[in-house]
Amino acid sequence: MANCLVAQSGGPTSVINATVAGVVKANQLNPIYDTVYGGLHGIEGILQEMFVDLTNMSGEENRILQQTPASALGSCRYKLKRENIADFEKLFEVLDKYDIETMFYTGGNDSMDTVTALSEYAKEHGITKHRFVGCPKTVDNDLMVTDHCPGFGSAAKFIVNTALQTWLDYNVYTRQEVFILETMGRDAGWLAASACLSGIVDIVVLPEEVFDPEVFLEEVKKCIDEKNKCYVVVSEGIRYADGTYVSAGKAQNDGFGHAVLGGAGNAIKEIILDSKTAERCKVQDLSTAQRCHATEQSLVDVTESFRLGMSAHMRSADKNFTGMMVGVKRKDTKEYDVEFFATEAKNVANHVKSFPDEWMLPRYRGITQEAIDYIAPLIVGEPDVIMKDGIQAYVKPYYMR
Amino acid sequence: MANCLVAQSGGPTSVINATVAGVVKANQLNPIYDTVYGGLHGIEGILQEMFVDLTNMSGEENRILQQTPASALGSCRYKLKRENIADFEKLFEVLDKYDIETMFYTGGNDSMDTVTALSEYAKEHGITKHRFVGCPKTVDNDLMVTDHCPGFGSAAKFIVNTALQTWLDYNVYTRQEVFILETMGRDAGWLAASACLSGIVDIVVLPEEVFDPEVFLEEVKKCIDEKNKCYVVVSEGIRYADGTYVSAGKAQNDGFGHAVLGGAGNAIKEIILDSKTAERCKVQDLSTAQRCHATEQSLVDVTESFRLGMSAHMRSADKNFTGMMVGVKRKDTKEYDVEFFATEAKNVANHVKSFPDEWMLPRYRGITQEAIDYIAPLIVGEPDVIMKDGIQAYVKPYYMR
Repeated sequence: MANCLVAQSGGPTSVINATVAGVVKANQLNPIYDTVYGGLHGIEGILQEMFVDLTNMSGEENRILQQTPASALGSCRYKLKRENIADFEKLFEVLDKYDIETMFYTGGNDSMDTVTALSEYAKEHGITKHRFVGCPKTVDNDLMVTDHCPGFGSAAKFIVNTALQTWLDYNVYTRQEVFILETMGRDAGWLAASACLSGIVDIVVLPEEVFDPEVFLEEVKKCIDEKNKCYVVVSEGIRYADGTYVSAGKAQNDGFGHAVLGGAGNAIKEIILDSKTAERCKVQDLSTAQRCHATEQSLVDVTESFRLGMSAHMRSADKNFTGMMVGVKRKDTKEYDVEFFATEAKNVANHVKSFPDEWMLPRYRGITQEAIDYIAPLIVGEPDVIMKDGIQAYVKPYYMR
Repeated sequence: MANCLVAQSGGPTSVINATVAGVVKANQLNPIYDTVYGGLHGIEGILQEMFVDLTNMSGEENRILQQTPASALGSCRYKLKRENIADFEKLFEVLDKYDIETMFYTGGNDSMDTVTALSEYAKEHGITKHRFVGCPKTVDNDLMVTDHCPGFGSAAKFIVNTALQTWLDYNVYTRQEVFILETMGRDAGWLAASACLSGIVDIVVLPEEVFDPEVFLEEVKKCIDEKNKCYVVVSEGIRYADGTYVSAGKAQNDGFGHAVLGGAGNAIKEIILDSKTAERCKVQDLSTAQRCHATEQSLVDVTESFRLGMSAHMRSADKNFTGMMVGVKRKDTKEYDVEFFATEAKNVANHVKSFPDEWMLPRYRGITQEAIDYIAPLIVGEPDVIMKDGIQAYVKPYYMR
């Protein structure tokens, strides 16, 4: 027997640790590996041999790990570049040194590129000892092939409930008001769209469609004329016809070549006020909270994240299982149910699954019933979150120990 | 027998409806009044005779009302001015017309001024038929005399948990970063201070102390030098030594003569980046969500809010009980417990209870153990929130029916 390694990359979610917990639990039930290492801070830490031993994690720690938000093993935005051979050589050296047969990597499309690159490198160099397995996670829900991504359901649930709650709040006064809820979503509108499940959204602008201020303001005006109120949801990544971000001027750079966004909500507020379409606008930018509000995980989401980790572990018993990602497939049953399956990680790497055009209603007036039916089962159920004196219990990050 | 009226004013909270539910339930158990009217949109709607009949509310509706965020009866920011005699005359005319003996008014210090003004007017005019009873509510926790205010505990709980969760999130990357959490609190720092219960706050700036950028930046630099990270909490109302708001330039006016604040977090971010104290800052402005996130009510808070409504109803059986506010008194017991008491509303009206100087640590480095011990019991316990397919159940606002 040899060992395995599990590590996390990219932006955290509320349930990302459940996949790690699933790998650990699966190996306790069915010990394919002697040791389950946790690699700290993704590839960056693995290159520095920053490991913790998760093999004998207690049942209690495993349970609390599942409700602990944000990557308990730490994350990185370090991109493994194919031309940087030294990194590859070092990484395989480390895997050999610790006798690591399988590396599980949870992440988004950049991480699936890492899984692809490592398995390709191994193949090219005739290395058969090491396997690389991707586990999807992203609140953005923008990965190809998989029906949906662990992490999305919990973020969507927080957004739906916060939309409903802030809508109830802004309605208490009779005054004219536009409420603008800004969600994450650089290129994909899944999170913004999910707010529509609250049933109260008047207008939603997704990054998949061009932001036309004229059409937008006409629709806002219709709402204001009708009821003196308008509830708007915008994705951080919305763009004008010429491709510039509505939030332009606030972009920084995150090292992956993506713009770091923020401020679309405030930009929309200015557009509304400047045009005098409404007298008053309030903005709620959900920001970081939407991806880590683990006190309100979706039970479906956290359960799937855990089971996906178990499935990845089990599949890795196959010595040829490398360069693969474990995805979620929605079964064709009346009651919502899923099964897991495997796809080559390269089918997922560096692609983006957009919110479908045919699921958007014209003129930013919401999403179709089909879209709602797709998202609805993903936010269902509440796990019993362990609280201590009103504060959520959590596992101290392994990189802080 | 005659009737009573319950109405809501000022900013909503997550538990403000529980007080209304308490009044209704108390009258079902002990029918002092024939009819319990709900007045829509506070004084503004009462003047227009906008009433609903709450007398026979079902047990199920009562229960869901307790978990419904934001004023289900609507609110107003209409200030009853003593010189505006016509308003007073009209209001008493309406009370007579509907045979309303007691008016329960939930709100903050402006509302307690309304209770005071109405009871004084009645006294001056020899009117003995009508009684006016205030029920405190405010997330700001800034009312005098009462130990604390219903609504504060639930907002504090959301803040504490979101602080912990976003702290776990911003730590996953090794990069240098300052996280800035902005809370409500125009003049009182209770909400910002409550974030310290998470145990992760490095620096907290309250409106009760002058914001000195030099001292602040020195403390941020110490954190950055020590651990490359710094978690900062600021109240929206923080001010420079000359009294100008740190968020200056963004102030509007809300009709009560208070500045409408927002943007202290972003202003602090600019100060940090401009001074090159840190390379990267992220801001989370909790905005409206903190006062309406009823999926995470504190059980202590919502229970007290309900019981306070029952207590107010019971006390109003006394024909002389007018111009009073029902407050919360913390018992001198080892285990946290409270009792309700009455105080003249004028003792509360138009005052602000500040966060005590002696509870602040020097140089923005947090709050004392005494402060933590004061806040801690108020966030304890989780009610069984009724969810439907992952979305919180709520009572449709009465002003929308």
